[in-house]
Amino acid sequence: MSLEGRFETDEGVVYVGGDARQRYHDSRGYGYPLEGNEIALAPVEAAHLLYRGDLERVVHGESGERLGFREFVSREPGDDFGVRFLVYADLRSRGFYLSPNAEPWVPDPPGGEADFAVFPRGKGPRDGEIAYALRIVGERTDIPAAELRPGVLAVVDEESEITYFEVGRRDPTGTSGSDATLPEACEADLLADRVVVWEPPTSLYEHTFYGQPLEGREYDEPTLQCSLLEAAYLAERGAIDLESETVRERGREVEGERFDRRLIVYTALRERGVVPKTGYKFGADFRTYADVDSVENLGHSELLVRVHPAGYVFEPRDLALDVRLAHGVRKTMVFALVDPEAGIEWWSLERLTP
Amino acid sequence: MSLEGRFETDEGVVYVGGDARQRYHDSRGYGYPLEGNEIALAPVEAAHLLYRGDLERVVHGESGERLGFREFVSREPGDDFGVRFLVYADLRSRGFYLSPNAEPWVPDPPGGEADFAVFPRGKGPRDGEIAYALRIVGERTDIPAAELRPGVLAVVDEESEITYFEVGRRDPTGTSGSDATLPEACEADLLADRVVVWEPPTSLYEHTFYGQPLEGREYDEPTLQCSLLEAAYLAERGAIDLESETVRERGREVEGERFDRRLIVYTALRERGVVPKTGYKFGADFRTYADVDSVENLGHSELLVRVHPAGYVFEPRDLALDVRLAHGVRKTMVFALVDPEAGIEWWSLERLTP
Repeated sequence: MSLEGRFETDEGVVYVGGDARQRYHDSRGYGYPLEGNEIALAPVEAAHLLYRGDLERVVHGESGERLGFREFVSREPGDDFGVRFLVYADLRSRGFYLSPNAEPWVPDPPGGEADFAVFPRGKGPRDGEIAYALRIVGERTDIPAAELRPGVLAVVDEESEITYFEVGRRDPTGTSGSDATLPEACEADLLADRVVVWEPPTSLYEHTFYGQPLEGREYDEPTLQCSLLEAAYLAERGAIDLESETVRERGREVEGERFDRRLIVYTALRERGVVPKTGYKFGADFRTYADVDSVENLGHSELLVRVHPAGYVFEPRDLALDVRLAHGVRKTMVFALVDPEAGIEWWSLERLTP
Repeated sequence: MSLEGRFETDEGVVYVGGDARQRYHDSRGYGYPLEGNEIALAPVEAAHLLYRGDLERVVHGESGERLGFREFVSREPGDDFGVRFLVYADLRSRGFYLSPNAEPWVPDPPGGEADFAVFPRGKGPRDGEIAYALRIVGERTDIPAAELRPGVLAVVDEESEITYFEVGRRDPTGTSGSDATLPEACEADLLADRVVVWEPPTSLYEHTFYGQPLEGREYDEPTLQCSLLEAAYLAERGAIDLESETVRERGREVEGERFDRRLIVYTALRERGVVPKTGYKFGADFRTYADVDSVENLGHSELLVRVHPAGYVFEPRDLALDVRLAHGVRKTMVFALVDPEAGIEWWSLERLTP
């Protein structure tokens, strides 16, 4: 026999009596217990029970209207009820229990804008353990960088398919060569938006992986083409004979303030022992190599780094593109969020199959 | 013995006498012939001969200054001289001859903003055959959609690596089912930014591939979730019981004018026998299926389509990302440029190794 729920609009929950506590809460993780055997369900939980046919109907407290699944979801006013329902149903169908990320469903809900607390497989709301906080957005909902939290982000696209992203902190570190081996004041020319370093010591390219040799001509030491970022960094350390401010000015001319932001990240990566090279072919700012010993034995680059200002607002579509591409080339997508005062926050996003 | 060139700034070419015509033009495709054995070289051609050591130096007509490769390229004022030189040298090293896309280097140069005319392998400027027009940009140079031309686009990134894209027209066509089989006035609800169609005939999904079944519940006919685009198209044809204007208004609320643009492209694709489904997971507007007979035997989707207004300005970085991703999933990237009056222009971009 199916039960019936009672929906009080002003309280925003659906009450179910009878043996609801044993049937829905204790054994299947829905709602939170009240006095006796009654439980309270969030609308998304009630909708799921209606959808499954476990709850026969919900009676609307004020109007006495009797609502089936279709009527219940049609009257839910929230713009994001649909997307939350889809993700809730998807995770339950994959064998997970999850509760609204709020008291009294879960004590001490994880912070941020998370919608649900997802419990470890086989566990429920009564086991005192949360696997991760889950945030859900539609593909048209922008995500301010400041709202990123470690956990999982589910994006529901316009055709109601769901993509899960694992969001975490990711501080890049590596063992690539230090600045101790840099040459001194190599001759260099600034040409439009790049720099040519004329016949520097081989190690500049071979061991510390600066620049790109200009090929097709015989030299004892190959002439290197460097990006403005590489040149600004090298000039700052006296390795080439250009003023670093001259290079930075040129960078700002051709890229605006984006150049300074990228130089901050370039410098931080080099200082962490990680070699950044352009990520242009992957549509990113950098691809990075953690352990460069020599260019001949260069391994696979591990990260794709995209630089944004700290106040950036992500569009889920762009996240999908970046993370998908990184996954396809077996790299991890990392976002470097730059605040001129507070420094850099590093976040990784990876595709996840729950 | 190397020759010497004479550079007249006001004419913008380098003159080389001696046996230059036989040596550089007739046998190796540099410059254009003048009286006797003299030839005229574009600066990029002269730079390449200097770089190879084939031309010893260039004497500057006004100042009498004697320029080697380094001095010659350092005094070239154009912002894009460096990127044009890099691509010129790259294609020559791959065994191709190419000339500036202008008279008198080539008669009737192909239109548009192309920088070079590239000749078929084994051919040169005297053979009267052009393989393609080549446009060259640095990764920081924006490309207005109106400037797209069939041919090849070379993008030089900040570290001087070159990516080649083949640019062409690509009108999508297919054999997927027509509207003749659409049902009439199925019950549907508009829920925030998606539409639920309640138990429509199975064929709506199975054969014409509209919507996405709502799973996990037993129905005779599965309930479908449709995107607002699918719903607007179906409503316009009377297949669901919503007003198409109501759906379109909701689309505009959540997406702005982008919705109308996408609906124009969605409709054009359907009318061409091509089924568009969301391209969200690839960061595109649509992925498309040319020959849908039944969803059970669905093949691989062939195209990724991104919709832009006709006046759009591309950033090379975004092109790199889109084309790279499409290539990685074995699809062709197509841009649909929408002009409300003139209709849609379809352009494909594909990676090319010359």
